[in-house]
Amino acid sequence: MATVTRPGDELDRCAALARQLRADAIRCSTAAGSGHPTSSLSAADLMAVLLAGHLRYDWSEPKNPANDHLIFSKGHASPLVYALFRAAGAISDRELLTFRKLGSRLEGHPTPVLPWVDVATGSLGQGLPIAVGIALAGRRVLGAPYHVWTLTGDSELTEGSIWEGLDHAGHARLANFTAIFDVNRLGQRGPTELEWDLDAYAARVSAFGCEPIVIDGHDLLAIDAALGRARHAERPTVIVAKTLKGKGVSFLEDEEGWHGKALDEEQARRALAEIGDVPSRTFPTLKPDPWQPPTRPAARRPEWKTYREPLATRKAYGEALAALGASRADVVVLDGEVGNSTHAEDFKRTAADRFFEMYIAEQQMVAAAVGMQVVGLVPFASTFAAFMTRAFDFIRMAAISRASVRLCGSHAGVSIGEDGPSQMALEDLAMMRAVHGSTVFYPCDANQTARLVGLMADRPGISYLRTTRASTPILYTDRLEDFRVGGSRVVRGGDGDDAVAVVAAGITVHEAVKAADEMKGTIRVRVIDAYCVKPIDAAALVEAVRATRGRLCVVEDHWAEGGLGDAVRAALAAAGAMHEVERFVHLAVRDMPGSGKPAELLDAAGISARHIADAVREVAGAGRGRPR
Amino acid sequence: MATVTRPGDELDRCAALARQLRADAIRCSTAAGSGHPTSSLSAADLMAVLLAGHLRYDWSEPKNPANDHLIFSKGHASPLVYALFRAAGAISDRELLTFRKLGSRLEGHPTPVLPWVDVATGSLGQGLPIAVGIALAGRRVLGAPYHVWTLTGDSELTEGSIWEGLDHAGHARLANFTAIFDVNRLGQRGPTELEWDLDAYAARVSAFGCEPIVIDGHDLLAIDAALGRARHAERPTVIVAKTLKGKGVSFLEDEEGWHGKALDEEQARRALAEIGDVPSRTFPTLKPDPWQPPTRPAARRPEWKTYREPLATRKAYGEALAALGASRADVVVLDGEVGNSTHAEDFKRTAADRFFEMYIAEQQMVAAAVGMQVVGLVPFASTFAAFMTRAFDFIRMAAISRASVRLCGSHAGVSIGEDGPSQMALEDLAMMRAVHGSTVFYPCDANQTARLVGLMADRPGISYLRTTRASTPILYTDRLEDFRVGGSRVVRGGDGDDAVAVVAAGITVHEAVKAADEMKGTIRVRVIDAYCVKPIDAAALVEAVRATRGRLCVVEDHWAEGGLGDAVRAALAAAGAMHEVERFVHLAVRDMPGSGKPAELLDAAGISARHIADAVREVAGAGRGRPR
Repeated sequence: MATVTRPGDELDRCAALARQLRADAIRCSTAAGSGHPTSSLSAADLMAVLLAGHLRYDWSEPKNPANDHLIFSKGHASPLVYALFRAAGAISDRELLTFRKLGSRLEGHPTPVLPWVDVATGSLGQGLPIAVGIALAGRRVLGAPYHVWTLTGDSELTEGSIWEGLDHAGHARLANFTAIFDVNRLGQRGPTELEWDLDAYAARVSAFGCEPIVIDGHDLLAIDAALGRARHAERPTVIVAKTLKGKGVSFLEDEEGWHGKALDEEQARRALAEIGDVPSRTFPTLKPDPWQPPTRPAARRPEWKTYREPLATRKAYGEALAALGASRADVVVLDGEVGNSTHAEDFKRTAADRFFEMYIAEQQMVAAAVGMQVVGLVPFASTFAAFMTRAFDFIRMAAISRASVRLCGSHAGVSIGEDGPSQMALEDLAMMRAVHGSTVFYPCDANQTARLVGLMADRPGISYLRTTRASTPILYTDRLEDFRVGGSRVVRGGDGDDAVAVVAAGITVHEAVKAADEMKGTIRVRVIDAYCVKPIDAAALVEAVRATRGRLCVVEDHWAEGGLGDAVRAALAAAGAMHEVERFVHLAVRDMPGSGKPAELLDAAGISARHIADAVREVAGAGRGRPR
Repeated sequence: MATVTRPGDELDRCAALARQLRADAIRCSTAAGSGHPTSSLSAADLMAVLLAGHLRYDWSEPKNPANDHLIFSKGHASPLVYALFRAAGAISDRELLTFRKLGSRLEGHPTPVLPWVDVATGSLGQGLPIAVGIALAGRRVLGAPYHVWTLTGDSELTEGSIWEGLDHAGHARLANFTAIFDVNRLGQRGPTELEWDLDAYAARVSAFGCEPIVIDGHDLLAIDAALGRARHAERPTVIVAKTLKGKGVSFLEDEEGWHGKALDEEQARRALAEIGDVPSRTFPTLKPDPWQPPTRPAARRPEWKTYREPLATRKAYGEALAALGASRADVVVLDGEVGNSTHAEDFKRTAADRFFEMYIAEQQMVAAAVGMQVVGLVPFASTFAAFMTRAFDFIRMAAISRASVRLCGSHAGVSIGEDGPSQMALEDLAMMRAVHGSTVFYPCDANQTARLVGLMADRPGISYLRTTRASTPILYTDRLEDFRVGGSRVVRGGDGDDAVAVVAAGITVHEAVKAADEMKGTIRVRVIDAYCVKPIDAAALVEAVRATRGRLCVVEDHWAEGGLGDAVRAALAAAGAMHEVERFVHLAVRDMPGSGKPAELLDAAGISARHIADAVREVAGAGRGRPR
């Protein structure tokens, strides 16, 4: 294990590697004219010893399942990341100098555009919790030999998500997890909160169930000993390293005013002269021992239940997870201590060992899901849809990570009833539509829910399922295999001579059906179940506009902004059909709700069958008018 | 101070009060048929002693600036909140029984619809960080005598935001802050992560700079001593109280399966028989000593700078804050350790004592802002717009709190350049539009920015300012007083015979102007600066549609979902003008950006002047077509 403790050659090699990492971090950032060289220099010794003597990684085979994982939670130290890749022989000197240029894989902060980068970082406090997810998967699902290393800055240690991560690492006793705190004392705009109070950091780490190892982060022997101890510890470890920002260059060391600034050519010349301006070379690294994950049983077709009686879509979600758990060995389920409400706990019936209780820590829950998909698992993560907002930054970053993560938010909308607005998701559709490449489902019945969960399992990117608290009637017992990404379904009318089209999703589909049935014989209403809010079924919407000569009503249990109404209008505009919409009414939640019974609140919000019927009559009326 | 330590009467009184709190919590939740009686029972003794002997609060004058503050971070214990209000004589027995009914002030989770509730809670892990904000304001701005108490559950202690809060309380040595951990061991779906490991909690509290006081939460004398010690401590305190969920009712005590469940009538009868089913009464409470905040200097009209040279709107934001700091004593500024990038640090030039460095802890930053407005301050809080997503749940809840908080997100869009997508806000408009009652500004020049900051200072509710990293030219030097909530401005064309209208905001206004100027003499383009994205200027949009015979182009540096395009279409639909839009092109960011120079990235995203000109030509073309 200890490669450096034998004095002489190997210590020299680490020192040479550290010098090269510093030089390359300066070279590439100066060539770019921007970047974070000083944040790279503080961690160069730590990373040199890790790369030379501890990281077991096959650089020619980044997908090798035995590879260790290294996540820069301090993603702004990207010059150091890319200098490491250069030293490992993964990229060339020439590519290194494309840093931050248009079209380069070497972006300002690392992203998985590069095969050696697991996840995008750059929003601080995220790399560590994601590393916890990779470690959890390795330990609890895969039985993998890999160790997970994550490098954090000290400024990011004020993010609560760091402590959610260490809490989980400690609770799960993830001995395969090591965080390295690069405590260089200086944040972006000056000293950090705790500066070099290493004891304070160590006390926090201990209190959260991890083993702190306090070292001088520029002492190569001490680093080597700490990394060796970390790999073989029986608990998760945190190396608390005292470092100097800008270490190795006299005019940068521990100086304020250098955060996120590249050196100019002249400064770089001086810095390289100090470091030793020798050509970069490729250093030997360690490969992992050969290992293959145990063969999984072949996936079977999930046996979805078929429902005839009313059931909440959240319950159908849980039962669909249970079916997936029985049919596939790669599906994992995470929940934020509300598994008996989201019904994610039903998964335990068929795959208890792949259920992860994440307690009330939504950021960590999403981060762990992102980490688990890094190693090939298929994660579903759930909480109340309202509390998914807690993890928005993590979801946003997951999209930049090109991660495939499935989220389910239960208890959507005012229809939850008595619990009141804090528990009602009224902005989740807006949030999830605005995630790059996302798929957004909002089912209205149990059979549909099961099929959409099945689609999510195979869907790349971020997908989201919005479920409802209350039992809802069964609308679908046939053509269940027709539900698809980008689909919709006509549940009333649709034979061509409808007077008005109502576009609904989830709970409001049932209200719209009630309204349509009540008006039978007076106004012919087409009810469209837009169960896929993104991508929405533009063709069906255009067809409905044409069939009704432009008479449309959209009704949703969501704020008026960012949800189904916006999605419908955007699709019509993109299809060049705005001018065909003669009358458009949008029923949505516009006033702050309180408590009450579900039906009372739907009515108070103006999205119940009664209000839909009024809107239909208004829209059906002759001539143009100014609708709501 | 110690009211209970004298044995006899007062101890009896506390015990009677605790019994009444338990009985009323059961009565109201049973009447409602839902709610969280067992979570209320665990904290009844703690709250009885607090109310009877320590909380200095004038129940007839909730706005008294000397009043202590009590925030239920565990908002689901609302039966206990309302039972306290009943015991203090603030509400009647009759109102208590309206709990959770439509139209009642006694919602499922407490909201400031009630005058004795500072903020809405119910999303766990938020009350404590908000309490930190109230304590910070009391200590650092107001010099107020009040003490801030907050009651948390134990399940919520896994939220990172709790530790952000305690970190700040410890760092700022907020001796006027006391958290009470109600460690009843049982969460919603079973045992909590740490169960009754009080030592673990105490170690965490200590490590985060606060003083732990570990007690039996049902020992009235111990509670009294702890509360007394907490008020007079020299550091922030955390009372770690071991409690029993359902305490006081034999069949509920420490039993699983009772979370969030009301007792039925028969169960309630049995429970009340155990507790002692006596009529409720009003108990004597303590008032604060009379105190008035020092008179603030009268507000002066802010002296906005007038700019003639290009300047980044983020810099103009900072200088506008400095002007506000000099003119008003109630404005406070918070920033997430990026004050030299958001330029919030400019506020320190005029009001250093009202600047709060919140370090990298966006949730705590927004929570502190919410807390500060509780006591009448006017907070502005800023970070990179991308990282504002970290606080979405807090912003959502702030709207339910009817809080007036001003947020500024800098570095919006791909135009930030080399730093790459992790630092680019491309979803912030979607997020902020979907906040109830929000105002969303996106200025394009420095003079406009200053005026919008001025409007925000007086604006109730949640307001948001989106600023740009790069310097932008000055467009406005006249009619600066015309900028208004719900306004827009025509910056090119507008005299009636324009062929195409381009709606832009922020950075894209300049691109649109370039495009319009280039096309001068060929196509007459109206450029609308939609600096107020919500509420958007519907009248100006309708007028533009009519003037151009329905030829519209919207261009934004944001994902296609939830931003300016959705806002424009929604406004036109609400105005009944969809059918007048003959051609509509929406230019927005649709592919994941990488790094590059700002101009390169604007062009690569298809939102530069060149693309706008192409779109204008497309839209201006004769006949209808299928635009993008």
